[in-house]
Amino acid sequence: MSSKLKGNAVVGQSGGPTGVINQSLVGVIEEVCEQDCIQDLFGAIHGVRGIVNEDFVDLKKISRHDLEDIANTPSAALGSTRDKPNQEYCHRIFEIFQKNNVRYFFYIGGNDSASTAHIVNTLAQAANYELKVFHIPKTIDNDLLVTDHCPGFGTAATFVANAVIGDDLDNRALKGIKIDIIMGRHAGFLTASAMLARRREDDGPHLIYVPERPVSMEQFSSDVEEVYSRLGRCLVVVSEGIADVDHEPWAKKIQEKVEADAHGNVQLSGSGALADFLTASLKQRMPTTRMRADTFGYLQRSFPGLISPVDAYEARYCGRMAVYYASGPNTAGSVCLQRFGKGDRYRTETFVTTLASVAARTKSLAAEYIHEKGNNITEEFHEYVSPLVGRLPEVGYIKR
Amino acid sequence: MSSKLKGNAVVGQSGGPTGVINQSLVGVIEEVCEQDCIQDLFGAIHGVRGIVNEDFVDLKKISRHDLEDIANTPSAALGSTRDKPNQEYCHRIFEIFQKNNVRYFFYIGGNDSASTAHIVNTLAQAANYELKVFHIPKTIDNDLLVTDHCPGFGTAATFVANAVIGDDLDNRALKGIKIDIIMGRHAGFLTASAMLARRREDDGPHLIYVPERPVSMEQFSSDVEEVYSRLGRCLVVVSEGIADVDHEPWAKKIQEKVEADAHGNVQLSGSGALADFLTASLKQRMPTTRMRADTFGYLQRSFPGLISPVDAYEARYCGRMAVYYASGPNTAGSVCLQRFGKGDRYRTETFVTTLASVAARTKSLAAEYIHEKGNNITEEFHEYVSPLVGRLPEVGYIKR
Repeated sequence: MSSKLKGNAVVGQSGGPTGVINQSLVGVIEEVCEQDCIQDLFGAIHGVRGIVNEDFVDLKKISRHDLEDIANTPSAALGSTRDKPNQEYCHRIFEIFQKNNVRYFFYIGGNDSASTAHIVNTLAQAANYELKVFHIPKTIDNDLLVTDHCPGFGTAATFVANAVIGDDLDNRALKGIKIDIIMGRHAGFLTASAMLARRREDDGPHLIYVPERPVSMEQFSSDVEEVYSRLGRCLVVVSEGIADVDHEPWAKKIQEKVEADAHGNVQLSGSGALADFLTASLKQRMPTTRMRADTFGYLQRSFPGLISPVDAYEARYCGRMAVYYASGPNTAGSVCLQRFGKGDRYRTETFVTTLASVAARTKSLAAEYIHEKGNNITEEFHEYVSPLVGRLPEVGYIKR
Repeated sequence: MSSKLKGNAVVGQSGGPTGVINQSLVGVIEEVCEQDCIQDLFGAIHGVRGIVNEDFVDLKKISRHDLEDIANTPSAALGSTRDKPNQEYCHRIFEIFQKNNVRYFFYIGGNDSASTAHIVNTLAQAANYELKVFHIPKTIDNDLLVTDHCPGFGTAATFVANAVIGDDLDNRALKGIKIDIIMGRHAGFLTASAMLARRREDDGPHLIYVPERPVSMEQFSSDVEEVYSRLGRCLVVVSEGIADVDHEPWAKKIQEKVEADAHGNVQLSGSGALADFLTASLKQRMPTTRMRADTFGYLQRSFPGLISPVDAYEARYCGRMAVYYASGPNTAGSVCLQRFGKGDRYRTETFVTTLASVAARTKSLAAEYIHEKGNNITEEFHEYVSPLVGRLPEVGYIKR
């Protein structure tokens, strides 16, 4: 293109909120204000639903000061949605875009949002309508393909690590078996992050189960019993998506009534059923042992007190870069993070991948990060996750 | 007394851990090091259990640097216990004290710990054995009598307020009904603290239920439905000890198998059963409404990332003052906090009350703090609780 595509832009947020999804939104707003080719910037209220209802807010009017407050606030400031648009829904989106001379579409979300962006982009191409479509990654699950990691994950991992550090101290003070259920339907990244809490030899979590490695209740119980008989206590971290050896999630098996959300996914969060089932099962084997379980639930994705600075920076950066790419020769894609350097030398750059390569499918925890016994996370994962999280608290102990 | 009582001292920690119980421990250690009358300072491992097993650690040997690390670490560094000693158990404690020339006993805990201290003190008096016995208050429930408030509460309230601020943002982004279960078996102080999350007109929590005000499931459901139909969403905060109109806790009613801890209390925490029961009940009335529930669980008492500075200071201060009082004319008692001034002028002093006045019984949330409808907390409570918590995050919004 010799001259830049001129028109309006729409930005939306989709799926489960994160602690830094508003950083990406503010990154988009900031960069749009620097690009002359984009006239109005419409914020879609509740994602695609706001688009089809033409429920927009003018984002260029927000003051610099308010933008910083919004960036530092968890959850989706525009509102989010669980709608997963089909072809017809996307066609309606495209019509609204044509009507309002929308030439830029930025959608912040997970793989379902990449799918939506992909369909809309395909419709625009078929109609020969010039539209730039960019997906900005967001998910605490960290399960998007191509990118090294996803904005939102580092902050959720910071919360989980803090929570498990505290819970391990609690379990030392009042010994027993403690189970913590962590979010993660298919991918174990967030659950695996609990390993950051382990700094001394006998620190918990002593066992970590992720959805990638099916486990029988027999094996699970026997693992817990072994640790408990050795240490007099056991802190177990379990992903909500933990599956039986037949690959059926435990949570699904125990739900009498399966409530499906609009994406057709089984609801695993917002219920303590899995935790209570696991303790009840262990009770049969160890009836007199003190046993408790917590389901961390939604606290993991919207807790305001502990935002990872690296995660906040990268989320903003991805938002800005989406607009930067859109204002250049790229016509569509998903913004990805690439990592360079280890430990203190960690830094990231962005690149663009196709929408199709991120859409619909998800990434799993690499086999090298899972202990061969399937009941723990290896030290290799520490190197991967530690640059992404905020500073973890030092703890003091009384030495015997 | 003309000359100070010379001998050794024992300090122990009891009951559920808090974020600042180690501040009180370090306060005791610091002040003991300043008092010539106390020779050795024995830390009892796992409270009274450590005493009867003579499982002690020498606390005077810990370095200044390590002491600060311990003070800043949540949960009980000496280990805790749920043992509630009877007369015979206390007699055994007294024998160990005599054997080791223990003349000072500092016990950090709730009302059960005050009872233990009271029994041991009575035994010593009956035997004409000079013993100074001081109880140092600790509880996230804030339910001790006489004192204005309890160390440990402010930090737990800080966590709850942060969590509910985040959860309200989450509920705005993806609307529906959300229930959060907060710790508090008999006293609603911690649950009431969720009101700190409410800063704008339509901020949640929209409803708050405490154990002090029984509520029927019919009333609860109707309250939730009213808010939901008005705002399109509803964030409800419920104490784990919420009771039916017959004063029987809901949690107790729904537990098929009641697991009792060593104090004879019904186990309400460490289970998601109440939350799941409440959502299931609401589902019958509003079958198509998005509904989720979280039980905050143990995160509330040991989370390391968000310690209230005021709470930390006061916990240390209570520990130091216990030793200071013991080294003076006082022979026994519980350290209490008295509040002076409001808002920025808030400050506290300590005083001593009798062990008997704190032992066994608990304090409830004053009627003036509970809305006349029984489904919310009044603004008066804000003045009471706000000086005790850490700084809460500002949030940014997109204005329509």
